[in-house]
Amino acid sequence: MPAPASTPTAPLRLLGIDPGLRITGFGVVDAQGSKLAYVASGCIRTDEKMPLPERLGVITRGIAEIVATYAPGQAAIEEVFLNKNPWSTLLLGQARGAAIGALVGSGLPVAEYGTMQIKQAVVGHGRATKEQVQHMVRRLLSLPGDPSPDAADALACAIAHAHGGQGLGALSSAGRRKSGRLTSLAKLK
Amino acid sequence: MPAPASTPTAPLRLLGIDPGLRITGFGVVDAQGSKLAYVASGCIRTDEKMPLPERLGVITRGIAEIVATYAPGQAAIEEVFLNKNPWSTLLLGQARGAAIGALVGSGLPVAEYGTMQIKQAVVGHGRATKEQVQHMVRRLLSLPGDPSPDAADALACAIAHAHGGQGLGALSSAGRRKSGRLTSLAKLK
Repeated sequence: MPAPASTPTAPLRLLGIDPGLRITGFGVVDAQGSKLAYVASGCIRTDEKMPLPERLGVITRGIAEIVATYAPGQAAIEEVFLNKNPWSTLLLGQARGAAIGALVGSGLPVAEYGTMQIKQAVVGHGRATKEQVQHMVRRLLSLPGDPSPDAADALACAIAHAHGGQGLGALSSAGRRKSGRLTSLAKLK
Repeated sequence: MPAPASTPTAPLRLLGIDPGLRITGFGVVDAQGSKLAYVASGCIRTDEKMPLPERLGVITRGIAEIVATYAPGQAAIEEVFLNKNPWSTLLLGQARGAAIGALVGSGLPVAEYGTMQIKQAVVGHGRATKEQVQHMVRRLLSLPGDPSPDAADALACAIAHAHGGQGLGALSSAGRRKSGRLTSLAKLK
């Protein structure tokens, strides 16, 4: 009697987020074994004339809508830089906090990735340019054209998570790296 | 025939929030005309050993639980200081963003108040000490003892909103002040 065919692993749907107060990029990718498939990407934009709580509300509701529409199983969010202007850092922090709160509030585990980690995972070196990231995201996901920079960064974050979280690529040990950045992810294993 | 008795205004329940990553204070107050009544207060605490997304999740879920339990009609949140350490500013910003996102996500209008505005509204001058704020919060709400500092700041924020939002006190024109901080509140009028 022949051995039963091995059951193919179900694809894991990943949501990548590139947080920002004005523009929050998102990208949804299905990862199955070493294969990646593009699902969706886009941006949540907020009006600079609106009061901060309303802008954060747009991000919160936008994330909830994306999660409801695409039903990802895990989320990954990019870490942010300190701005020279500390008030800008405070605003960016609030946007990122609203995004993470909405993701966790939707029941998703959230992993964090630094920009260099993402570039390393997608392009192969941490000093890659924005254009190189866009190009590799396009190639890895077989897209017909380059995605917009914000969507590309979000998709790249999802790809880095696919590589790191499932041991497919350069970041296979990411869940245990010293920085502790991926501890949420590590806890899932 | 005697004139019908005037219908008393229904109390407006206000939720004040003093945001922080380690401790987020909350205070619930009923405002009816010039009367204020204490409803509840306390803190949401997060474990410093937990990854940031999980800590923000504790804040998000805590706020949602408070809103579900006390059903406030409006929220007011304290503005935060820039920390000397920009990374601390970034962390505090994320905690505040998660709190605001959860409030707005719960359907609440959110007003913002600076620390000096709150002290002015509660104590009568913007340079009041923490102890003076605690003491006046105790007096204004007829509490049996001083509330904890975090709860006192959150209750003071709710009191400032009651004064500013309903024209009861020194901040009666707060909704129109130049800083634009209270524009969310102004929009409600």
